[in-house]
Amino acid sequence: MIYEPNQCPIRFGLGVFGDHWSLLIIRDMMFRGHTRFQDFLDAGEGISTNVLSDRLSRLEAQQIISRQKDPSNGRQVIYELTDKGKDLLPIMLTIFAWAEKYDPKTRVSKELAERIRTDLFGARDEILATIKQSI
Amino acid sequence: MIYEPNQCPIRFGLGVFGDHWSLLIIRDMMFRGHTRFQDFLDAGEGISTNVLSDRLSRLEAQQIISRQKDPSNGRQVIYELTDKGKDLLPIMLTIFAWAEKYDPKTRVSKELAERIRTDLFGARDEILATIKQSI
Repeated sequence: MIYEPNQCPIRFGLGVFGDHWSLLIIRDMMFRGHTRFQDFLDAGEGISTNVLSDRLSRLEAQQIISRQKDPSNGRQVIYELTDKGKDLLPIMLTIFAWAEKYDPKTRVSKELAERIRTDLFGARDEILATIKQSI
Repeated sequence: MIYEPNQCPIRFGLGVFGDHWSLLIIRDMMFRGHTRFQDFLDAGEGISTNVLSDRLSRLEAQQIISRQKDPSNGRQVIYELTDKGKDLLPIMLTIFAWAEKYDPKTRVSKELAERIRTDLFGARDEILATIKQSI
């Protein structure tokens, strides 16, 4: 047994990011540079304002994202991934590579999928560098 | 943009294994060697027979698991991971390593977590060898 059933890492992960909407919000922060409430609302997924507010609060409580004032507009709130949130990137990338292999509709570049399979952490570091830095 | 929004790999993944119960069933097949309906029912997660039946059917329809007769007892049905299902292992392992880092209650061995971080696919191959082979 490589984990204790009562202290299972998969259950812990599911509790933090296992919600459908939460994972899509994290995705949009990682790969689309979304930071503002309106960005997430306009992402084309059909999330409602209530559900979005709830999921942003939960992700903040779990320290996956942080809530800050936009330095260019003090009345605007922006959300950013914490280090704990950015550390979810390898999970996202292994999902990418799996979907590239099995979903004919998924259009991830074959180069990226191959890179993930052979050098996951190198791919992660390159993508991390593109994620908006904390202020 | 490293993926097309309408052909998103994360959405595809969520549709296949993004359900709480489905992921726990896959986990128990990977790490506990569970194969029978009763095994999943007795796994201590409190899943109901209705929900379990539904999730097993969905996972079979998605070709994550296959349903077969137990060769040692023709009236007993057993479930096994397909290659597509086994290919979810790197996703599970990256969740392990993340939880080991951030959840004080998760008890994954530090050695395994470190191995996952430095040699994910080597760790995967070792664990794959322990998963019950298809009949």
